[in-house]
Amino acid sequence: MRPHVVIIGGGFAGLHAARALRDAPVEVTLVDRTNHHVFQPLLYQVANTSLAPSDIAAPIRWILRAQRNATVLLGDVIGVAPAARAVEVAGQGAIDYDALIVATGARHAYFGHDPWEAHAPGLKTLEDALDMRQRMLLAFERAEWTADDAERRALLTFVIVGGGPTGVELAGTLPEFARVALRPDFRRFDAGTAHVVLVEGGARLLPAFPERVSATARRDLERLGVEVRTGKPVTEVSADGVTMGSEHIAARTVFWAAGNVASPLGRALGVPLDRAGRVLVADDLSVPGHPEIFVAGDLAAVRWDADRWVPGVAPAAMQMGRLAGSNASRLLGGVATTPFRYLNKGELATIGRNKAVAVFGPRIAFTGRPAWFLWLFVHIMYLVGFRNRLSVLLQWAYAYFTFQRGVRLVTPPVAPSA
Amino acid sequence: MRPHVVIIGGGFAGLHAARALRDAPVEVTLVDRTNHHVFQPLLYQVANTSLAPSDIAAPIRWILRAQRNATVLLGDVIGVAPAARAVEVAGQGAIDYDALIVATGARHAYFGHDPWEAHAPGLKTLEDALDMRQRMLLAFERAEWTADDAERRALLTFVIVGGGPTGVELAGTLPEFARVALRPDFRRFDAGTAHVVLVEGGARLLPAFPERVSATARRDLERLGVEVRTGKPVTEVSADGVTMGSEHIAARTVFWAAGNVASPLGRALGVPLDRAGRVLVADDLSVPGHPEIFVAGDLAAVRWDADRWVPGVAPAAMQMGRLAGSNASRLLGGVATTPFRYLNKGELATIGRNKAVAVFGPRIAFTGRPAWFLWLFVHIMYLVGFRNRLSVLLQWAYAYFTFQRGVRLVTPPVAPSA
Repeated sequence: MRPHVVIIGGGFAGLHAARALRDAPVEVTLVDRTNHHVFQPLLYQVANTSLAPSDIAAPIRWILRAQRNATVLLGDVIGVAPAARAVEVAGQGAIDYDALIVATGARHAYFGHDPWEAHAPGLKTLEDALDMRQRMLLAFERAEWTADDAERRALLTFVIVGGGPTGVELAGTLPEFARVALRPDFRRFDAGTAHVVLVEGGARLLPAFPERVSATARRDLERLGVEVRTGKPVTEVSADGVTMGSEHIAARTVFWAAGNVASPLGRALGVPLDRAGRVLVADDLSVPGHPEIFVAGDLAAVRWDADRWVPGVAPAAMQMGRLAGSNASRLLGGVATTPFRYLNKGELATIGRNKAVAVFGPRIAFTGRPAWFLWLFVHIMYLVGFRNRLSVLLQWAYAYFTFQRGVRLVTPPVAPSA
Repeated sequence: MRPHVVIIGGGFAGLHAARALRDAPVEVTLVDRTNHHVFQPLLYQVANTSLAPSDIAAPIRWILRAQRNATVLLGDVIGVAPAARAVEVAGQGAIDYDALIVATGARHAYFGHDPWEAHAPGLKTLEDALDMRQRMLLAFERAEWTADDAERRALLTFVIVGGGPTGVELAGTLPEFARVALRPDFRRFDAGTAHVVLVEGGARLLPAFPERVSATARRDLERLGVEVRTGKPVTEVSADGVTMGSEHIAARTVFWAAGNVASPLGRALGVPLDRAGRVLVADDLSVPGHPEIFVAGDLAAVRWDADRWVPGVAPAAMQMGRLAGSNASRLLGGVATTPFRYLNKGELATIGRNKAVAVFGPRIAFTGRPAWFLWLFVHIMYLVGFRNRLSVLLQWAYAYFTFQRGVRLVTPPVAPSA
């Protein structure tokens, strides 16, 4: 019997861990709660009706179909027993392992205000994106019914909390969508009056980027019609809108892009966690006291250098996944594991159409149309599977030239009164 | 104030009624429970993972965006008050009308066995199609988990009840999907052993087609690996499978394509209905005693000739919708209404890849590859919106040449034990 490597999670880290074990003399079992891998950097384009869910997601078992030593199982891992070397799958019992790779990622966090989630959904899964899409479209549908001016204004106000790349990208596409695509479709109000507010508690947008880039992003967003509010943390989110101290923005639709908390499975390992619930892993991504357990992706807290932690971005998750896979193979083959070295591939964020910001290391930063084309190229290249790439390119071309969006479906049907 | 025409339903009939009123001196309000028009003849291709929901559906308000006298409202019409000339929308109150067009279609019917629906979903809406897709994909996921041979056989047995075009089309694509697309993705069983059974209570498949065509369809399906069972009505559907008298087929997945019942809104009109709940309309599609109320589409029972009723197909719904619209306009303009004349455009059904059957009138019937190309052409031409046509063509080309399917997503995530 070849040794058994169990991978929990089919995101960037889990998938790349599985691929790294392709030629290793091991059996691999990847367990995920969904049947699909999601290209998370484009989730916001499902939320904003630009892309269909199937454009950015593919079945995990289809991605790994040619890897004969990998079995994919749809299941919800509810526990890990490090002493017994087994994981517990809801309704299916235990799966034993010789090495374990935990790559269950993160969820959005509400900083101790969990009730806010009902009013301000975050964006981590396809379901999250469909929920956002539905809330946005229903707000416009409700605006067509209402005769009350204040209610209509609140329905047409969209607040996005969090000024990181997700918040910036979500905010940047909404004004044009309302002004161009939606305006001809409504009769009783002007969809172009929709108001988008981006709220960031910190001093500036895109805090991971240089200050100059943050300023460019802010200016670009404001030109698109986005109201940018920085420096005042949100103190309350309710069905009525968002409060920042003494200020209140009346809004029926609030989206959350303001923070992450690691998957609860980290706690199940019984090892030290950081404040965000991430597992403080060793250099080789293994867990203290359990060299046969590795953690990769957003669930892992690992040092970049003395001052910084590796950020929770897709390239970092892929790199960690690959190393966790090869280290598991090394361990089982009796070879010394190797430490993780983060290769910074730069940071990118789009701002509406034609604009983006890109940063590579401390010296290189560019903005505007070149950055936007780079963003386009990188995202198309990384999309899993030829079909998706082609479909996404065509839909983007369609949206770019016609200003229309293809995926404005509300499913399941919900009456606007509901 | 121009007179007000209210249309309930945004299917083929309702949409064509609205379009027929484009240049009439009236205000049009179309109310639908969903925000989208669905191209129903291709719903089964969403159920079988060939197409994405957005490929066959578009927002009703987007389709009618250039028709300035038409307002689209998302709402659930729960009652009609013919005496008061008003319809009641859930949570929104009454909408008055001068003329009303009811085009709320049909749902699948279980012939008095409503509990069967939980085990054998039908196919009328996008949600139905997503539900079918999810059940089918989860059956394969569960088969990867189970160690019990009988359970695995039941999980890999798919029963389709009803031998009309929908049943034939659903059954015809499943064996190839399992044998070619799914087989490389599973490790613990052979997806090619999936067994598809098409059950028709009547003597032959496709009863609306000539006998010779039914025989061809049966032979084609059997060559694809479908087991065709005719002449024995289903007597029980449960979580264990399907029973026909003394026979039982153990199956975890059953799809229903065996009958329709008209929308309950027909009853709200207080006029005579036929056995299937359809409204027995006058020649001009108006309702007895209420010349200002018209019924169009699957909800209307209207004579084709002395022997036959107009069938519940998309071209009939479009034709009725157009006449209902123009008759509403005539009535409000003080002009005599005109009677409905059904123009039979023929019947079409595909059988797997490369095969189809087509019938035009009593004399012309053809089968095989020419019919399949005709089917392809007709469906692409009728698809609403340029973007959808292109996207569908590309996805079909992809599926045709690679034997892969693009839309194998289970959303929301459901563990296979659930």
